[in-house]
Amino acid sequence: MERTLIGDLHTKVGQRALVMGWVSVRRDQGKMVFFDFRDRSGSVQGVALPLSGSIDAAKEVRNEYVVSVEGTVNARPEGNIKADVQNGDIELEIQKIDIISVAEIPFELSSETNLDTYLDHQPYTLRSERSKDIFKLQETIIQAFREEMKVQDFTEFQAPALAGADAEGGAMAFKVDYYYDKMAYLATSPQLYKQIMVGVYERAFTTPKVFRGEKHSTTRHLSEYSSMDFEMGFIKDHVDVMAVLEKTMRLIVKKTGLEIAMPAMFPVLKLREAQKALGVSTDELDLDPEHERALCEWALKEHGSDFIFVTHYPMNKRPFYTYEDEADPGYSKSFDLLFRGIEISTGGQRIHDYNKLVSNIKTWGLDPEKFKFYLEAFKVGMPPHGGSATGLERLTARLLNLPNIKEATLFPRDLNRIDTLLSTDKNTK
Amino acid sequence: MERTLIGDLHTKVGQRALVMGWVSVRRDQGKMVFFDFRDRSGSVQGVALPLSGSIDAAKEVRNEYVVSVEGTVNARPEGNIKADVQNGDIELEIQKIDIISVAEIPFELSSETNLDTYLDHQPYTLRSERSKDIFKLQETIIQAFREEMKVQDFTEFQAPALAGADAEGGAMAFKVDYYYDKMAYLATSPQLYKQIMVGVYERAFTTPKVFRGEKHSTTRHLSEYSSMDFEMGFIKDHVDVMAVLEKTMRLIVKKTGLEIAMPAMFPVLKLREAQKALGVSTDELDLDPEHERALCEWALKEHGSDFIFVTHYPMNKRPFYTYEDEADPGYSKSFDLLFRGIEISTGGQRIHDYNKLVSNIKTWGLDPEKFKFYLEAFKVGMPPHGGSATGLERLTARLLNLPNIKEATLFPRDLNRIDTLLSTDKNTK
Repeated sequence: MERTLIGDLHTKVGQRALVMGWVSVRRDQGKMVFFDFRDRSGSVQGVALPLSGSIDAAKEVRNEYVVSVEGTVNARPEGNIKADVQNGDIELEIQKIDIISVAEIPFELSSETNLDTYLDHQPYTLRSERSKDIFKLQETIIQAFREEMKVQDFTEFQAPALAGADAEGGAMAFKVDYYYDKMAYLATSPQLYKQIMVGVYERAFTTPKVFRGEKHSTTRHLSEYSSMDFEMGFIKDHVDVMAVLEKTMRLIVKKTGLEIAMPAMFPVLKLREAQKALGVSTDELDLDPEHERALCEWALKEHGSDFIFVTHYPMNKRPFYTYEDEADPGYSKSFDLLFRGIEISTGGQRIHDYNKLVSNIKTWGLDPEKFKFYLEAFKVGMPPHGGSATGLERLTARLLNLPNIKEATLFPRDLNRIDTLLSTDKNTK
Repeated sequence: MERTLIGDLHTKVGQRALVMGWVSVRRDQGKMVFFDFRDRSGSVQGVALPLSGSIDAAKEVRNEYVVSVEGTVNARPEGNIKADVQNGDIELEIQKIDIISVAEIPFELSSETNLDTYLDHQPYTLRSERSKDIFKLQETIIQAFREEMKVQDFTEFQAPALAGADAEGGAMAFKVDYYYDKMAYLATSPQLYKQIMVGVYERAFTTPKVFRGEKHSTTRHLSEYSSMDFEMGFIKDHVDVMAVLEKTMRLIVKKTGLEIAMPAMFPVLKLREAQKALGVSTDELDLDPEHERALCEWALKEHGSDFIFVTHYPMNKRPFYTYEDEADPGYSKSFDLLFRGIEISTGGQRIHDYNKLVSNIKTWGLDPEKFKFYLEAFKVGMPPHGGSATGLERLTARLLNLPNIKEATLFPRDLNRIDTLLSTDKNTK
């Protein structure tokens, strides 16, 4: 018999069907045994009746066993229908149940399970409906991001993860033992490459892993995360970039189907205006985490918005390629996008003039020679451009109000955590 | 005036339009100056007429300058129409040309430019139509891969790039200085994680960067490349996996619009059959590059196919999780997919039984303790499963018959080559 996906069982009422999947729950009720079976398409209740040919085999089966089940798809009696549950109107009466793989679970997963235990046992705990929903949402986000990028005429490219030198000399880049005595570094961002790609395709996007050796152990930092980056040419200023980002966020929210407060336009404040609204000194170069939270509360109360743009960070808080606002000297055409208490995106206009860029690299105390490859993009003609980067895991966590970013990360790596898996798919030639 | 994309100019014949883009070519003809302008949507010819207000400015403009051009969109006279060229029926008569950015090109790019020079100057050379076409095709491939995965009910996940140990102890993994005295390793494949994800979603895919410290300097190896991986549960055997891969290749080829020889079914040979067909000893554990080429020639001649599957590699040539064919002891339910002379995909069925897997890990001389995290997926119940990995750059190169894989790689890294760019998008908190 052909396998029927559990999600298609409702088309087979009154017929026999073959189901393959996992046992989510087994419940003994008197002489009957009930199961919740699941496969990639959903869940269904099964029952092994007393005196049936399947009852002895059914009693052997435990939670998480992988099984093959032949049975009859019965409509449930009126009083027994669960309208809000998938397949709540049917039940699989088990004729035959075969064990494909036995299972031994390490513990019963519950809302009480602490995070470290949860993470130590992800091969098991990720199977919960809650976890599956989190990473299904994450898939929806990244696919919606790409969809909007395509609509807006961006070209996808694959940014490199290995770089030959840490040209900026920040302490954040992980070092890699490259060949022989050479060192390499892991990319902390695809920034410089996506700017190069503006020279090629005018509008470019990429969704790479990036790596930050931050000695933080917090609820919002990761050593490795997924970045949703885009960069676009022929902009008037950073506001054009914000418009693309805002439109992208709207599609992401729409695709997730979540209720998010979004007015007709996301509110926009300069950093100094935000600081004044919060009663913080405008000498501060950035917002503290607690101020980010307070500002988001303010935006929700005053503007009915879960999102708020903060612009015009001080030039000396931003990297060398940041574009200074001629109308507001000392401040940059940059922005952060805050969402539900935390910065999820950063971006702005970049310098496109070759000479200005070389001069800024020197002002920042860096060596233009190390940026030779990058600078060639500017030497051969670059338009005004800008872009933005959004952290996939942070956005996932905030959309679902998860307190810790690690819950929104498959196999999170941080100061204290990294698992030990590594394998090639085959011996290579 | 609003900017008009060059691709939309045909809708504005007889009207004025504002175009922004790069100068691909400038040609002086007598007292007139002709240009090819390009933006993300395409190319158009512009002309500055003698005695026009724009002629003096036009004479300042050089190749790769970024310009803003106001002009009238004229229909070309009948005899001057180039039917096979975008905008070959119109011309932009330049009223005003403003320089946004000057440019100085390092050399004239031609088909004579050698590969090292081409790669050293990618920020410039990638702008050629040929390069843009290569990476547009690469975008089409990866997006078609994802599209087919969605159609076939796979869930996308983000595989980690950092691993805590090189559990297999191969020499190929790059070492990373993680925190304090800890070492980490760069993933050589998402293999073990995608198997874990089979336990979660039954069908999972991912398109990560993977890293191989192979001391090769060849036309087909890279230190960093993009892998298109999938893994699926509840298979009968490796043939189910091959069917999904074949269907995916057909969509990729269709989306690229290229002429590729594909019969109704891709030919399939066991390795030993392939060796016999080539007159090679069946004691060899794998095909040499020259035999891969010869086999592909054979497949094209005998089966009219640019693709050929080779199955049943010897067990001792494959990793510890490889599934042995009970009907053909010593040989595995594994396959390679060869395309136009080279292996582009590898895959097979994997062991799903926990005890068998532990025993194999020991037989391979490895330490089960190091695989504890991975093994938990099997302890809690795994179905029969298998999957496949396809190299994006190799496939791109072969589809376009590019002799060197580096031409199909943005910013290739190998034994001799790595550029020095690295930057964060902002200072972090």
